[in-house]
Amino acid sequence: MRLLLINPNTSASMTEKAAITARAVAASGTEIIAATSRTGPASIEGYYDGALAVPGLLSELKERQTTGYDAAIVACFDDTGLDAARTFSDVPVLGLCESAVATAGFLAQRFTVVTTLERSRVLIDNLIQRYGMGGRAKVRASDIAVLELEDAASGAIGKLRSEIERALEEDGAEAIVLGCAGMTDLARELQEIYGVPVIDGVAAAVKQAEALVSLGLSTSKRGSYASPLPKPFSGAMSDFTPMSASG
Amino acid sequence: MRLLLINPNTSASMTEKAAITARAVAASGTEIIAATSRTGPASIEGYYDGALAVPGLLSELKERQTTGYDAAIVACFDDTGLDAARTFSDVPVLGLCESAVATAGFLAQRFTVVTTLERSRVLIDNLIQRYGMGGRAKVRASDIAVLELEDAASGAIGKLRSEIERALEEDGAEAIVLGCAGMTDLARELQEIYGVPVIDGVAAAVKQAEALVSLGLSTSKRGSYASPLPKPFSGAMSDFTPMSASG
Amino acid sequence: MRLLLINPNTSASMTEKAAITARAVAASGTEIIAATSRTGPASIEGYYDGALAVPGLLSELKERQTTGYDAAIVACFDDTGLDAARTFSDVPVLGLCESAVATAGFLAQRFTVVTTLERSRVLIDNLIQRYGMGGRAKVRASDIAVLELEDAASGAIGKLRSEIERALEEDGAEAIVLGCAGMTDLARELQEIYGVPVIDGVAAAVKQAEALVSLGLSTSKRGSYASPLPKPFSGAMSDFTPMSASG
Amino acid sequence: MRLLLINPNTSASMTEKAAITARAVAASGTEIIAATSRTGPASIEGYYDGALAVPGLLSELKERQTTGYDAAIVACFDDTGLDAARTFSDVPVLGLCESAVATAGFLAQRFTVVTTLERSRVLIDNLIQRYGMGGRAKVRASDIAVLELEDAASGAIGKLRSEIERALEEDGAEAIVLGCAGMTDLARELQEIYGVPVIDGVAAAVKQAEALVSLGLSTSKRGSYASPLPKPFSGAMSDFTPMSASG
Amino acid sequence: MRLLLINPNTSASMTEKAAITARAVAASGTEIIAATSRTGPASIEGYYDGALAVPGLLSELKERQTTGYDAAIVACFDDTGLDAARTFSDVPVLGLCESAVATAGFLAQRFTVVTTLERSRVLIDNLIQRYGMGGRAKVRASDIAVLELEDAASGAIGKLRSEIERALEEDGAEAIVLGCAGMTDLARELQEIYGVPVIDGVAAAVKQAEALVSLGLSTSKRGSYASPLPKPFSGAMSDFTPMSASG
Amino acid sequence: MRLLLINPNTSASMTEKAAITARAVAASGTEIIAATSRTGPASIEGYYDGALAVPGLLSELKERQTTGYDAAIVACFDDTGLDAARTFSDVPVLGLCESAVATAGFLAQRFTVVTTLERSRVLIDNLIQRYGMGGRAKVRASDIAVLELEDAASGAIGKLRSEIERALEEDGAEAIVLGCAGMTDLARELQEIYGVPVIDGVAAAVKQAEALVSLGLSTSKRGSYASPLPKPFSGAMSDFTPMSASG
Repeated sequence: MRLLLINPNTSASMTEKAAITARAVAASGTEIIAATSRTGPASIEGYYDGALAVPGLLSELKERQTTGYDAAIVACFDDTGLDAARTFSDVPVLGLCESAVATAGFLAQRFTVVTTLERSRVLIDNLIQRYGMGGRAKVRASDIAVLELEDAASGAIGKLRSEIERALEEDGAEAIVLGCAGMTDLARELQEIYGVPVIDGVAAAVKQAEALVSLGLSTSKRGSYASPLPKPFSGAMSDFTPMSASG
Repeated sequence: MRLLLINPNTSASMTEKAAITARAVAASGTEIIAATSRTGPASIEGYYDGALAVPGLLSELKERQTTGYDAAIVACFDDTGLDAARTFSDVPVLGLCESAVATAGFLAQRFTVVTTLERSRVLIDNLIQRYGMGGRAKVRASDIAVLELEDAASGAIGKLRSEIERALEEDGAEAIVLGCAGMTDLARELQEIYGVPVIDGVAAAVKQAEALVSLGLSTSKRGSYASPLPKPFSGAMSDFTPMSASG
Repeated sequence: MRLLLINPNTSASMTEKAAITARAVAASGTEIIAATSRTGPASIEGYYDGALAVPGLLSELKERQTTGYDAAIVACFDDTGLDAARTFSDVPVLGLCESAVATAGFLAQRFTVVTTLERSRVLIDNLIQRYGMGGRAKVRASDIAVLELEDAASGAIGKLRSEIERALEEDGAEAIVLGCAGMTDLARELQEIYGVPVIDGVAAAVKQAEALVSLGLSTSKRGSYASPLPKPFSGAMSDFTPMSASG
Repeated sequence: MRLLLINPNTSASMTEKAAITARAVAASGTEIIAATSRTGPASIEGYYDGALAVPGLLSELKERQTTGYDAAIVACFDDTGLDAARTFSDVPVLGLCESAVATAGFLAQRFTVVTTLERSRVLIDNLIQRYGMGGRAKVRASDIAVLELEDAASGAIGKLRSEIERALEEDGAEAIVLGCAGMTDLARELQEIYGVPVIDGVAAAVKQAEALVSLGLSTSKRGSYASPLPKPFSGAMSDFTPMSASG
Repeated sequence: MRLLLINPNTSASMTEKAAITARAVAASGTEIIAATSRTGPASIEGYYDGALAVPGLLSELKERQTTGYDAAIVACFDDTGLDAARTFSDVPVLGLCESAVATAGFLAQRFTVVTTLERSRVLIDNLIQRYGMGGRAKVRASDIAVLELEDAASGAIGKLRSEIERALEEDGAEAIVLGCAGMTDLARELQEIYGVPVIDGVAAAVKQAEALVSLGLSTSKRGSYASPLPKPFSGAMSDFTPMSASG
Repeated sequence: MRLLLINPNTSASMTEKAAITARAVAASGTEIIAATSRTGPASIEGYYDGALAVPGLLSELKERQTTGYDAAIVACFDDTGLDAARTFSDVPVLGLCESAVATAGFLAQRFTVVTTLERSRVLIDNLIQRYGMGGRAKVRASDIAVLELEDAASGAIGKLRSEIERALEEDGAEAIVLGCAGMTDLARELQEIYGVPVIDGVAAAVKQAEALVSLGLSTSKRGSYASPLPKPFSGAMSDFTPMSASG
């Protein structure tokens, strides 16, 4: 089984970190193909960054079709471009937020997502409401820039731990979800420290992707994720013209 | 007051139709600047088309800054790229769906949105839930392709009318919202035929844009719509590097 | 265009304050007809005051029909009698709360309404839930009596500012809605102080009324706002007998 | 124990019918004091009628204080003026809709309210959402005018039965709530015919009133139902000036 | 009228306390039959205890049928086994939580349930969401073990009072619901101290049971509470084989 | 990895069918230990059957601890006793409904669960609301008794197919979830026939169990699933006395 893990921002160091986690949790027969988007922002912090990361993400999905993959993972906790990727693709596509909160739901009745910046807090809260976890999960920002997570001297981990402690104390959180792909390497250690499940989206998405592939399930092509209709795409986006449109 | 009306798909005929409506309802001092995206799909039907329309939309928003505008309207009922546009922009940005359902809410307690294809139905239903109208509004698809609305011989209007009649009969709809920018020219006539308010998103958005500008209100830059942070953007997206990042 | 602005309480000083705001934001061709209810409570604080303000409000709506108006505004943030006014009237009727929260929704994803007394807090929260903003807006009381807002020496503005500051800090509010018609004169200054959108219901309602009139839209007469049925009204309410009933 | 049953419309025949039910279900020590409003509409069908019934209702509540009552019931399924009555009163006040749906909730997980006219359907649906039963109850209109229920030849009962049958078949209703005070005499017979619980609001409210009185519970005077504040009431409403205001 | 009050835990002292309350509030013609489960946990704290209390509860319901009862009350605030009891029984069955929150809903728009241990908080919050009060009620734990309520020296009452004070201050609670059957003796005194309605589930359930019986209403046997189907029950549960199955 | 698959009803043929599916989808290193409850109903149809199946389920969980398992699956679509099992257990416990709807959520935005009898429909709908999928999923009953699924001549499959067809046509379902463990063998074939994802709970739960075990995640022991407290258990339930209680 080949899983395509696409980092939709252009920071290769984040891709590498996510790939390490993915490979660590993957089943023995699973190959992780890690890809970094070649076009778009260096990190995804808010709606503008996210929207401009989608073409790069779709390019990777498309170009890697020639070498093949059985499922894809969008390695950003904002689930950037997930709906578009599912519409485009014939294989399952997983997002980190959706995978992580579904996983948390099997372990705890109430949990808290701890993310980076305030600007991402409401965005993730909206995702969680759409995924149906609005009554069970809170979202907290810990005032960390995404790329500070790459820098051990930034103090980011201290801020993250403070916010986890507030979640346990004030929210009655029964589990913690790490709300940024850049936190993926911290899950195990934080789980040991706090004694509650700490869920990382990269790891969760790998297991969900493996599950869907092994069950022979893929995105429904009936209704909202139906394949793109043939039609002209203009200008810089002409590469994305649906293949059936060229026939 | 100058309102920038951007059609995020690349079909100039749809832009023209929307501009006619916009100019017809605009206040005497309002100038409508109609722009057609130069990059992306010819029509927006589903998530894939929508995601690939956003860079073209943001390009128009950015390039037109030199000549200036007081508010912008994204002229697609899917509210394509609306969050990203609000994050980017310092002036108010309005979407058709959000404007239309807010307007309908002043006129009726229960209403139905009639859109084009089934693939757009759930997408719009999700928007309506996010905008808080989920308990008050239903969404129906009438099996019309967006560009069929440009073709009088397509039978599209008959299908639309059948679905409106079902909404009145089966949903107890007190008003109808037209769920596609391409239906903008039909609102007045349908309102006369059916004797209930028929709300068109283009017209609604123009009035909301005028309202915000005249009240001196603009998108909050605190929290989820805070301006993009400075950071590198790579490849085909490098033109979108936030200006403050270059300093 | 003639907009009837009815203050449903009997304090003419509040009417005057609302009329100043209304005229300041009205379009050049809009005439504001300000009316003070002649029967009912001096201010509206809670359900009892509100219910007893409705006949006076409906009287103004009815008596002013002879001179004519194109839309009406109920100038109390509790949206006192709004449903009854819409049922009675053939022209659009706007409430302050509904107009303000719809306007806030175009500017911010999360916002806080700051109102006067605790007894109005849940009442407004119920309105906001009904209008679909329950997941996006919080309501705070600032322990101010409505008529204290007419008295510069009351300390009311200090209390209001403290509560706004708590909303920004504790709620993560991205915008503020002023939850009482008596605060209408403070919006601009507070917006400058806090750097987030501050929305006043009087101003918002004027623009929504102008929008509906210019779009040729009025309250649906199908379903819940259908015109009153002919039937006898007894005693002190006999003046309200629906006109069609007398035929 | 003395229960004041106020019919907020001015049709004495409806009061009499409700009083018969109330006396039939009252406990041995309970006295039912039936009162008909002396001012307002002959029947309550929609928001306009409802709003204009409230002063008459509050007058009865106030004037009957001299002879005393332990709890009051507003005998209209729209729960007309219930919030105002609770704010005014020092004893418990019950509404028919709230009492009936709470009672239904002990008997069935899903149920349907069958009311009279379409114009009341959404009004009741909004009540049910506010009372928290929106996910469990549907509302159906059976195209009956309220006063037709007083007329055996009107065909009203046939229409009501048809709608109950649709509720059982199409909604999977496990119980039926009769959505108009004028249907109170039909509950027992319909329950026998259909073999599911049929709940009448008058009977339900009598038992809830008895329960609260015997438990020594009354409306909270903290927060939203706090007693009216002293202030002037003008014109035709001056009789409603809160007593503490005169001190 | 005979009401069977079953304590689903095996602590007879708690049964006695509940019976005292029940008899104090029962109508003159109501006989309270108090029963203590003979199999299961000594107290119910969390899901495991609750699940293992259900067979004992159903045994009491079944064995007491020979001597007869008109309604049953499950005397635990977790509404332990309530759905199963309603499915089994031909008479009304009431739970403490459901009865108490319905009663609170007639008295206050916002209220707080104060329960014992943190492990019961989310369980009760889930009940309250299912009963439709999620938007109106909060749940607080006061760190008291259930059986500490039997011990005057445990400090339990002090902890309970502290949590009530926090509910009034921080939640804006308009009423308090006592979230454990073991608190039943404290309601009157706490109501006097705090001046807001304090609702006890035992008392509330007795009155609801009396109401349903006197109205001739019982659990719907259509749909989700339909009587058990005949089928074999094995092993230790064979005594529970539905009677119709043996025919 | 050893997964304990417990059929909480006592029909060994159903256990066998579930075990076949489980083994077919399990990863190469996963051993499926299939267990049939030895006490309780032959099938689970409604709340009474479900409650009386829980002690047998917990017995299996407990007795099998000596031989060891890494996660457990409750093989009934009603998620019978799932909360109690999670409270009891130190390893992850999965239910079929929760696993299936989470899986469906990755594949489709709107889907329908097709179950057996009407009496299970609302029960499952309540589960789905609690799991947060209430806005995305409908539940339909197909009038099949659970054990008819064991009998090829019962016509059960025809009824099931009719209901799936109605779901696709009337609900706009994008995927189908099979709402009974006894349908597990039909998923693949139905998926081929209808061309939409068809999700079976047994298969879904196996993959979720594998995922949690391989990620080192288990049920949170903080809050609602905290381990049972030591206390006496009486009578037939004394075997369930928490082990720590005996210390």
